[in-house]
Parts: sequence; structure tokens; C-alpha cells
Amino acid sequence: MKTGIIGLGLIGGSMAIDLKRRGFADEVYGVEAEPVNAAAAEKIGLVDKVLSFEDCVDQSDLIVLAVPVGAAVKLLPKVLDRFALTEAAGKVVIDVCSTKEHLSRCVKYHPCRKMYVASHPMAGTEYSGPWAAMPGLFDGHACIICDPEESDNRAVRIVEDLYKTLNMRTIYMNSSNHDVHTAYVSHISHVTSFALALTVLDKERDEKHIFDLASGGFSSTVRLAKSSPDMWTPILSQNRDNILHVMDTYIEKMNDFRKAIADCDEEAVRGLIEEANKIRRIIR
Amino acid sequence: MKTGIIGLGLIGGSMAIDLKRRGFADEVYGVEAEPVNAAAAEKIGLVDKVLSFEDCVDQSDLIVLAVPVGAAVKLLPKVLDRFALTEAAGKVVIDVCSTKEHLSRCVKYHPCRKMYVASHPMAGTEYSGPWAAMPGLFDGHACIICDPEESDNRAVRIVEDLYKTLNMRTIYMNSSNHDVHTAYVSHISHVTSFALALTVLDKERDEKHIFDLASGGFSSTVRLAKSSPDMWTPILSQNRDNILHVMDTYIEKMNDFRKAIADCDEEAVRGLIEEANKIRRIIR
Repeated sequence: MKTGIIGLGLIGGSMAIDLKRRGFADEVYGVEAEPVNAAAAEKIGLVDKVLSFEDCVDQSDLIVLAVPVGAAVKLLPKVLDRFALTEAAGKVVIDVCSTKEHLSRCVKYHPCRKMYVASHPMAGTEYSGPWAAMPGLFDGHACIICDPEESDNRAVRIVEDLYKTLNMRTIYMNSSNHDVHTAYVSHISHVTSFALALTVLDKERDEKHIFDLASGGFSSTVRLAKSSPDMWTPILSQNRDNILHVMDTYIEKMNDFRKAIADCDEEAVRGLIEEANKIRRIIR
Repeated sequence: MKTGIIGLGLIGGSMAIDLKRRGFADEVYGVEAEPVNAAAAEKIGLVDKVLSFEDCVDQSDLIVLAVPVGAAVKLLPKVLDRFALTEAAGKVVIDVCSTKEHLSRCVKYHPCRKMYVASHPMAGTEYSGPWAAMPGLFDGHACIICDPEESDNRAVRIVEDLYKTLNMRTIYMNSSNHDVHTAYVSHISHVTSFALALTVLDKERDEKHIFDLASGGFSSTVRLAKSSPDMWTPILSQNRDNILHVMDTYIEKMNDFRKAIADCDEEAVRGLIEEANKIRRIIR
């Protein structure tokens, strides 16, 4: 299957590697708006050819939109428009974005809606760009397919095959539930890491050597603060209502802790920690 | 050197392993208040002998207080009292606690103060108990020695040797600076993880499957929420003022984020993320 990947960053680049190596794609075409990244992707050999947007859509059987969600809401209708214009039959386009409701609304009434499958492979690192792409990135993680009933059955089966090739287990849910869930298990973690980085960087202005002391615990908690603003600004914007709701709960919990510590109420502090420890039964 | 370790958990147990293997200690004695842990430590072979508190202090040249800081403030004066009572010469006691000011105040005027060296090896995991002990836990991390001018020179040199054996690099500061620094690079990370766990566990009551989706990012951010209440309740209590100060800055940063998201101000969101990204130059 000829596979076109629009956006050759961490996710698009890593997909390109494994889809080609594992025989899902005969040829991999790429589209990359940023010239430096495009040159790097060709040099590293992530794709067989870098093409223009139109050529990539015309020459591919399957198109993967692997761009930040702010760009995806613009490009997805364009891909479907091009399908309609060229009377393409049997082609499929997927996105890999971390928010879904807004995207699904954008194409709800598009005549080619059924050729689009909404998907979210839940894997990644805090690095970005074609240099960050790696084989095996998706192995063993979960992938969500949203609103499968809105897509053509055959299109869904092709996408299921694609994620099987990437060794992902597939979960199905509607876009709205997807966005609630990702706010809890992904988006809030990024916001808390960003806030932690900002807090400690503030202090660092006076205390140059504070980071000599940073140990493994701090590093793992702050790791996500290295994540790209190009990716995260539109996510936080498009999943605004869910994220605000989770942030409010989170700030409430922080204030519970603050009060217990300020009141020297060791029993309350211990109670909160014991409750938090229940995360043990869930996260290995 | 005969080394007595009071508290055979993650830190005490891991020290026991490496100090014996690497030849710093000829014999390692242990004291453990919890009978199950004491039996486990003997069975695993962490120490040569489990002794009573008094016997351990009397028979050891160097005593390591590896108990939570709430217990350390009670036991440290008792060790020094015993030194005075038995007219012990040349003995040394260290603690390994994560807060120092309170502890140092407790023994400031003790006649045997010079036989105590305040130290904080900055290494650990989120697990506790003798089962969590492991070789190499300290290798490559930093260790803080506090207020070295309050201790006998010879005692400081022995403790420096001990941490050299554990492959740690030593940093010197006073207790008060120590507690400020650890509030920023360790304690706040734990509080943010606890609050994250509480937030997501709250949601889980209605949504049983939310954790199917938890990816690596969430796991690393929430990892410290598994940490022991026995260790962390007294830390948060004894470093109260510093931690409240850092929490206030942190809550302020969260509110900045909340406002930018609520206002749909993408430029402000991007600005905060770009600022947070500066953590890259500090954390590998």
C-alpha cells in the first residue's frame, strides 16, 4: 500500500520507519512544510520521496495526517476536498491527534467523511522533529479509534491493520469521551510538568546551583515540560473545557494539601498521601 | 569499620549492601523496629546481625540513622546521649534525611554534637522497605553534607569516605539552604505527583477504564505518588515553611496557565510553554 505521511516529526517519522520495515507500506511518501525538517527526513531516509501536498494525496492509497491538531483542522478538509475533486475511490485518510471533538466537527458533513478514520496512537516522547523518530515507538501501547461508525467499514479495517502492524491494541470510543479521557491521562500531566518547570526556573534566577541537586524524581516529574509548544498550544486550546475542568480538580487537591500542611495537620497529610498511593494498583 | 544502620528500608538497606561489598564496612549491624522488616532484612542478608538500638550504638564505630525524619529527631539525641553515657571516643553518627533544619536545631547544644555529621544522599526510588534495597542506588548522584563546621574534622572525613565508597559527589551547604533547595528540586515534585494521583483517582470512580489509556508520560509524572506516607508526612511537616512558599508559586503558575487557556489566549499559552521548555538546558 502506498502510504503518504503529512508531517515528518516524531509520530509521522516513527510510523514511516515501522510501516515500511514491517511491509505494510510498499512506498512511503512524505510532506513536510518546514524545509530543514524535509531535508533531514530525506537525508535520514525516513521516506522514499518528499512530495507536495497535492502529489502526496494523489499518489497515496492511505494518508496519515501527522501534524499538530491546529494544522490538522485545516488540512483534513483539504484532503477530503481533494478526494472529492479527483473522484478518488478507496482512499483513506487518518489523523493521529490528541484531541478529537473539534476535528470531527470540522468534517461531520463532508461528502467524503466516510473515507476518514479518526485515530490516536497513545505513544510518544518529549522530543520532536524527524530526528526524534525511532523504530518501535508504538509497540505495546494503546490506540484509540474514534467514532468508527462514521467511517466506511473497509477504511476502518485498513486502519486496524495499520495499527496491528505497529503492535498497538485498539480501543474504540466516541470523540467526546476520547477528549475527556486524554485530558485526565495525558493533558493534565503536561500542564503540571510545565507549571513545575516554571516554578523551579523562577527560583533558579537567584540560585544558580539549584539544579546540581535535581535527582531522578524531579527529572521524571518535569520531563514532559520539554514538550513542543507547536504541538501543545493547539491541544490545550481545542480541549479547553475538559482541561479546565481537570485543572480545577487538580488545583483543589493542591489546596487541600496546602491547607493540611499549613495547619500542621499531619493526620490529614498522611490521609492524602495514603489516598494518592492507591495509584499503585493502577500504574506498575 | 563496624557500621550500624538504624532503619533497614530502601536507603539503609541499599547502603548496607554497597558499604559491605565495597569494603568500607567489615561488619554491618542493623536495627529495625518493624519485626517483619527485621526478619526480611536478616533473611535477605542485608546485615550481618540485627541488634537492639543500644547494642548497635555500642558495637558500631559509625552509625547511620536511616529512618524517616520524624523518627530521626527522636533517635539522634538518643544516640548522642548514649555516646556521652558510654564515654565513646571517635564514634560518628550520620543521618540521611531529606530535611535538616529541625534536626540540626534538636542537637545544636548537645555536648556530643561534633560526633554527628548531617548528610543527605540524594537518591532513591518510590519504593520502600528492605525489599526495595538495591546495589548501586547511590552511584553518580549528589550527596549534601550540611554544616560541616559544626562537626569534628575527622568525623567529616570519615563520612566523605563513606560517600566516596557509594560513588556520590559531595556538596556542602548549611541546613537552612539545604531545606530551601530540596523543597524546590524534590519535595514539590512529590506534592504535585500526589495531587495528580488524587485528581485522576477521583475521576476513576465513574470511569473504570480510564487507565487503559495511561501512557508513559502519565506514568512518569505520577510515579512519585507511590511514595511512602511514613517518609513523606514528616518531611512535609518539618519543611513546612519552604514547601508552602514553593506551593504558592506553583499554584500561581497553574493559575496563569488556567487563565491563558480559559481566555483562549493561544499566544500566552505558547509563551508559558516556551518558558517551561527552558528546563531542557538543565535536565538531560
